[in-house]
Formats: sequence, C-alpha cells, structure tokens
Amino acid sequence: MIETDLKEVRKTLGEISDLNSSLALLSWDQQTYMPPKGAVIRGRQQATLSALAHQKFVSEEFGEQMQRLHDRKNELSTDDRSLVEVSLYDYDRAVCLPEEFVEELTIAQSAGFEAWVAARKENDFTSFLPHLEKLIDLARRKADYHGYEGTPYNALLEDFEPGMTAEQLDRIFGELALRQSKLVERIAASPVQPDTSWLQREWPKQPQFDFARLVLQDIGFDYERGRQDLAPHPFTTSLSAQDVRLTTRISSEEPFSCLTGSIHEGGHGLYEQGFAEHDVRTPLANCSSLGIHESQSRTWENIIGRSLPFWQHYTPQFKQYMGEAASGISVEQIFRAINRVSPSLIRVEADECTYNLHIILRYEIERALLEGRISAREIPEAWNARMKELLGIDVPDDASGSLQDIHWSMGMFGYFPTYALGNLYAAQMFEQVEKELPGLWSEIEAGQFTGLLNWLRKNVHLHGRRKLAHQIIEDSTGSPPASGPYLQYLESKYGSLYAL
Amino acid sequence: MIETDLKEVRKTLGEISDLNSSLALLSWDQQTYMPPKGAVIRGRQQATLSALAHQKFVSEEFGEQMQRLHDRKNELSTDDRSLVEVSLYDYDRAVCLPEEFVEELTIAQSAGFEAWVAARKENDFTSFLPHLEKLIDLARRKADYHGYEGTPYNALLEDFEPGMTAEQLDRIFGELALRQSKLVERIAASPVQPDTSWLQREWPKQPQFDFARLVLQDIGFDYERGRQDLAPHPFTTSLSAQDVRLTTRISSEEPFSCLTGSIHEGGHGLYEQGFAEHDVRTPLANCSSLGIHESQSRTWENIIGRSLPFWQHYTPQFKQYMGEAASGISVEQIFRAINRVSPSLIRVEADECTYNLHIILRYEIERALLEGRISAREIPEAWNARMKELLGIDVPDDASGSLQDIHWSMGMFGYFPTYALGNLYAAQMFEQVEKELPGLWSEIEAGQFTGLLNWLRKNVHLHGRRKLAHQIIEDSTGSPPASGPYLQYLESKYGSLYAL
Repeated sequence: MIETDLKEVRKTLGEISDLNSSLALLSWDQQTYMPPKGAVIRGRQQATLSALAHQKFVSEEFGEQMQRLHDRKNELSTDDRSLVEVSLYDYDRAVCLPEEFVEELTIAQSAGFEAWVAARKENDFTSFLPHLEKLIDLARRKADYHGYEGTPYNALLEDFEPGMTAEQLDRIFGELALRQSKLVERIAASPVQPDTSWLQREWPKQPQFDFARLVLQDIGFDYERGRQDLAPHPFTTSLSAQDVRLTTRISSEEPFSCLTGSIHEGGHGLYEQGFAEHDVRTPLANCSSLGIHESQSRTWENIIGRSLPFWQHYTPQFKQYMGEAASGISVEQIFRAINRVSPSLIRVEADECTYNLHIILRYEIERALLEGRISAREIPEAWNARMKELLGIDVPDDASGSLQDIHWSMGMFGYFPTYALGNLYAAQMFEQVEKELPGLWSEIEAGQFTGLLNWLRKNVHLHGRRKLAHQIIEDSTGSPPASGPYLQYLESKYGSLYAL
Repeated sequence: MIETDLKEVRKTLGEISDLNSSLALLSWDQQTYMPPKGAVIRGRQQATLSALAHQKFVSEEFGEQMQRLHDRKNELSTDDRSLVEVSLYDYDRAVCLPEEFVEELTIAQSAGFEAWVAARKENDFTSFLPHLEKLIDLARRKADYHGYEGTPYNALLEDFEPGMTAEQLDRIFGELALRQSKLVERIAASPVQPDTSWLQREWPKQPQFDFARLVLQDIGFDYERGRQDLAPHPFTTSLSAQDVRLTTRISSEEPFSCLTGSIHEGGHGLYEQGFAEHDVRTPLANCSSLGIHESQSRTWENIIGRSLPFWQHYTPQFKQYMGEAASGISVEQIFRAINRVSPSLIRVEADECTYNLHIILRYEIERALLEGRISAREIPEAWNARMKELLGIDVPDDASGSLQDIHWSMGMFGYFPTYALGNLYAAQMFEQVEKELPGLWSEIEAGQFTGLLNWLRKNVHLHGRRKLAHQIIEDSTGSPPASGPYLQYLESKYGSLYAL
C-alpha cells in the first residue's frame, strides 16, 4: 500500500510539475519571442493548463494518498518524507480555499490589474480605489480561511516566506529603518560624492550583452542548462534545473544596468540550476522562500558584482568589450559610479542603501491595511508622509508614489518583505562565507567564483524546499535571521566610499 | 440540452486545442532555443500534455455529447454541424484503437526510431529489420481496427489524406511515373545544360536570412501573427492562426536553399495564418489533408519562387543583399540554376522533375509490404531495382537508399503519397488560378502577390477542415485530382529550359 501510494503521489506530482514547467515556457515565450497577436490565445492556453494542474493537485484521492503516507511517515526514506510533508502542506493550504473564493479572487485580480494600469497612467488613485478595497477585503478573507496567530498579515506572509511572522519582521525591520535612514542622511551630507558625468556617453548595446554573458559564465551559470534572452521586464524562469531561462534588457545610455541586471537574474538562475538532480519533477526542486531566492540574486549582484575586487578583475575586459566608449575609465571610477547612493522615488531603481526603506514603507502600510488601522483611501497620505521620514523625499504624484508597484493590483499582500529579507539573508550568509573562506576576495579578484558558488550550493541550493528560510540561515550561520550583518556591511562599504 | 452539449463540446475542444498548442510550443522551443540538457525533461512534459489531451478527447461523456449533437445535426448551424462532424470523425477513429495497442505502437515507434538512427549511421539494414517487421505488423493490425475496403493501405492513408484511396493513387500515379521518368531521361540527354559553376562562392549568411524575410513579408506572411527562426531541420508549427512559427537554415555554400526553404515553409505558414478567425481553438482550424498542406508550400516554393517573373522582380534585390558575392549574376543564370534537374539518391534534395518518382517508389513498396506481396527483408532489393528503373540511378548503399527516410521507423505508412499529391494539387489549382487571374504573372513580376494569396485564402485556407482534399480540388478547379496539370506544367517549363 505504501509503495502504491508513493508511486501514485510521485506520478501525480510529476505530471503537475510538467504542467507547471509548460506554463513557465508559455510565459517565457510570451515575454521574449511570441508575435504580438499571439497574446489572446496565450491567455487561454495558460488558463487551461493552470486549471488542469490545480484540479490534479486538489483531487480528494490525491489528498488521501498523501495523508496515508504522512500517517506512516516514519517508514519513509528521508527524501520521501520531505516530499510528502512539503506536498501535504501545499495541499492543505490549497484545499482550505473554497473554489468560489478562488474564482472571485482571480476575477478581482484581473480587474485590479487592468484598473491599476490605467490609474497609474492617468495618475488617478481614486479610480483604482474600489478595486484596491475589494482586494484588501479578499486578502482578509483569505487570511481567515487559512487561519493565523497574531495578525492576519501572518497568513499572507506564509505564501511567500513560510515560517516568517510579522512579529519577527518588526524586530528585524525596526533597527533597519532607523540605522539605514541615518546612513542615507550621512551620505547625502558627505562632501565626497562620486563623479558620474563620464557615464553620459553612447554605450554600444551588443557588447553589453556579450560582456554580461561572459560574466554569467564565469560565475558559474551553465549554458548547457540555461540561456539568456532579451525581454522588456527582466525575469528568470525555470522549466527544471536543466533548463533555466534568464532575461535582460540593454540601454545605450547606461553601461551597467544590463550587467548588474544580468548578474541579479544570474543569481536567481544559479539557485534554480542548483536544485538536486534527483528532486527533478517534484516540489522539492523549488526555493525555500522568495526571501532566500532574493538573497541569491542580491549576493551576486550587490555583494560580489558591486565590489572592488570584482571590478579589479573585470575592468580591463569591460573596457575591451566597450571599446572607444570606455576609454580612459578607471576601476575606481566604475566602483564609485555603480555604488552611488541617491534617494529616489522608485523602488526598482533604488540603490543598496535606500532599497530596504522602500520595502519597510510598503510593509507598514499593507500590514496596517490588513489590520484595519488605515483604509485604502488613506494610502497616498500615509505613503507620502513616510517617504519624507524615511528617505527625505517629497512625492509629486501617486503615479510615482503609491501607484508605482504592480503587486497590490494583483492582490499580492505580504510579498514586499521578501525583497528586504533577501538583502538581509545575503549579508548574513556572506559574513559566514568570509569566515569560512578567508581567500575568497583574492579568488574574486582573480575571477574565480567556485568557492562561493560551492558554499551556496551546499548550504542553500541543494536543500531545495527541504528547509525553511530561517533554518537555512540558522544552519549555515548559527544565528536566526537578523539585520545586524546587513547594516554592518552597508556601514562599512559606504562609510569608506563616502568617507563618513 | 442541445445548447448545453454544444457548450460542453466547445469547451472540451478548446481545452484540447490549448494543450495541443502548448505541445506545439514545447516542440518549437525544443528545436530552436532549448538548452541542450533540457531535452530529457522535455520528453516528459510532452508525454504528460499528450496524455491529458488524449484522455480528454476519448472520454465517454465527450463522445456521448457529440453523438447526441450529431443525432440532431439538422438543428445545428452550418459551423456547428461541421465542427461536430469533424470531431466525431476523429473521435471514432481514436476510440477504435484499444489502449494496449496504442501503447504497444508507441513503444515500437520509439524503439524503431532509435534502431533506425543507428542502422542508417552504420549502413546496417539487418539491424533495423526486426523493428521494421514489427512496425509493419502493427500497421496491418491498425488497418484491421479501423476497417477498410480494398487494400489495408486505405486505412492508413486515411490518417494523412482523408478520402483518398490506393485505387485513386494508382490511377493518378500511373501516368505520372511513366511521363515523369521519360521527361527526366530527355533532360539528361539534352545538350543544353545550365552552368552552375558560379555558385561556388562564399555566400554571406545574415543577408540570406534578411532577404528571405523580405520575400516572406512580400508574399503575405504576417509577422504580427508569426515569426521565423533558425533550426537544424526546418519546419513550420502553429499555435493558432495568430501565432505561426517558421524555421529555416542557412548555408554559406549555396545562396538559394535558405530562400526556397523559407518560401516553402512560408507557404505552409500562409495556410495556417489563413484559417478563419472564428474557428480558433477548434479542430476546424486545421488543414484539410497533408496533401493540401503540401500544395500550399509547393505553390509558393516552386510554381512562384522558381519562376522567371519572380526572379525578374527579385534579382536586383537579391544582388543588393548579397553584395560582392553576387556581382555579375543575371536573372537568367539564377533562373536556370535553381531549376537544374539532376536525378539523385536523396528524396529531400530532389528537384521538381524527379521528386515524385522518389515518392512513387516508396508508395509501391509500402503498399506491397502492407498487402504482403513483399517482405521487409526484400525492401533493399526492391528499392534499388526501382531506383534504376525510375531514375536511372544505382544505389551504392542502404544508408542512401531504403534507410534514408525517418517515416517508416516511426510507423508512418501512408504518409509519403501526400508529398506527391501536394505537387499535383498545386499545379491543378494553379492552372485554374491562371485562368481566373490573367494578369497574375505581370503582378508577380511587379512583386505583387495578393491576387494569388486571396485566391488561395478563398478556395483553400478559409475552409480549414470543412472540406476534404478532393472537394477542395473539385470545387476550385471543376475536376477531381489528376496528374495531367502537373505533367503539363513540368513539360512546358522544362521543355523550354532544356530546349527539348
């Protein structure tokens, strides 16, 4: 019986994985090569495959098979036990949402997204308001279906950062907000500011793509098991650890966004390529949390890709690729330019020092919304006031204020904190990497990245979904998630850059 | 009831169409952009989606819904009636094959393909023989399941060219074999032979792709609803009439294969883009037969793309794209070179005059195999003897003889005739086009193709699967499919080219 159930469960999970990876391809293609008029039917294809995957997953028989296995989990191998635990966890979360509710949510998300696109374009928060109110109401009801301790926000957070709670976030983000905004103030007041006027040149596009390709190969991205293409909004998607797709975009006005964007997506891609081979077509070949996923992109993009040793190695090659355009540029100039701190309105364009402040603002507002401490109507006011406090910035309009992000329009409350957690996890793990690999920076200066990659493979990638985020952090660093290491990293790096 | 059944049937057909178009994307990606190591999981993804589409299609409930609709078909609109008839036809053919048989066939096809790859590489017919014997046996059993009148070959032909019979093929191919091989003999004996020595140059690759793109756009391929990419073995695939993907390859040793290959695939693509918009996500948005599909590619590739007026228009542009490499080349030189007749061993490299002879040889052999008039063991002998008779060629080894094609290794018996029928249909319809559009060749000389495309849209494309091949031919030309027009086309064109 146990053998039959196991075989059946693995078969169903494999088929669901096949549907999901086909969906990943449909979505990748939509954003890279699909001809414009293919869009309408693409939506139907995606809806059909999603529905099939969902039906297979929430079938009663499948749930019973998993429950029977779970009841006898001590008889299972370690791998099978993890598989059953993770799948049953997902199953329980899926079936506790009534079908009518899911349908209502899907419709509201779709309408919300449409309304948001128009509202942002027209800078008209009011037209988006009824949709937002509906989505907040649905988010509260979703939290009720799931159940929670403490705040309803915890039930939503669980979708993106399993095991994390708002209470922990308060502890972690509290000090962060304080010290990070203080740092930003001191940087703004420093007489030492980078000269970035030399960036005002015409930067050739193809060499940027080729240079990024070289760097991705160097850091360990396997082109036998992945590729990189162009897309208007860069993303990473994975069909399996054997087929990971990165995308990037290129600007002729700026020579580093293609590269740093590529390294960021490359960090996500290395994680996806790093899942254990025997976990293929199972939910174990998946990220522990979105925060952990983001920690991988941030490690490579920021800690490595914006470091001095990295540019000591790559400046000559960068100049060779860019030719004429980069003549006369020094390592120091690049290092300073790519680490320029400048508080700005838009989260996705924020630098390392200000980024988390954008997140904390969103976290505070969405949690207050969920708990009914503010209403949707009050968002712009709360947003603008807090932008002033945290970043010292006046928000000129809602389009570049509270309407800038897509997330709430898709009903995604509880997602934003994972971005900041990614930064914190990255710094905390990297502090440990530096202890364990004392020669690391010399290796990086020599263009060698295998030491770091192997550490991440062993401590993060290979576990897939076997460990929760806080377990990965504790097991690899000996401490629970905290903001200390990130603050230390920032204060040290930017203290020196801005002579604070 | 009729409304509910119709709604349910359309819903199921739509979902099956979504699965099939997702499969088309998986296959397109596999042959264009998939990283090498993605291959293993790709097979699983395809197997899962195929199985889901099949399960949905052969479900008893779905069959009953269609049967109920069919019983009351006089109450249906013309479109709905066509939809029900076509779908029920497919359903009946699908369910008459027992599941164990389909499984046995799938395994034998897969093993047969593997064995054929090795056998062709090693020039070892004997190692392929047991697989071939098995596949022939399975083809006979398949014919028995389907039932047939006359020869079992008819049951297999029905999969690719519905409505066509071996008796009709005998009539059509009989005169064709005789007169076409006579023509080839006379051409070989002619003192007038084209000079193709000027082709021995290095031909730049990107301009070939760009020039092909221009020509495809000119003949009417809509890049808003399709694209062209590179692939090792060119093919066309369609996700819907709104998303049609062509592929091509480029050789630096030869400047016309990329172009003629692109026009060939473009002809297939124009057909796929030409299905009626309201047929989307239904089986009506599909080709009438493979012969009709091939007639579209052959019309554009051969009748148009290898004509003098076409090259009178395009020679200056061809020379502009090719630059230095094409200097001093005349319209006449190109026209003669791309219409050179030269009997050769390999079907896929054959010219217009010899191509059908390759097909007739295969048709005779596969029909004799099915009827038990020869055994698989005797294939090489029969092949080589008939190659000598039809094409005057000695076959040096089986790798370039009876092992050259993939089809039999995949159990595809009854497919080959559709290639020859495509040539015949093309010529027969084009004879009619010339009657109806007297200014056609002047238009083509001016680079105008809408007259021809509109004729094909109206007489072929828009019908989708509503008409069988012979109905399309009869309705548009007033006569049943015949070999006369093609022979006349060949004898006139090549009589003049070779001064016969």
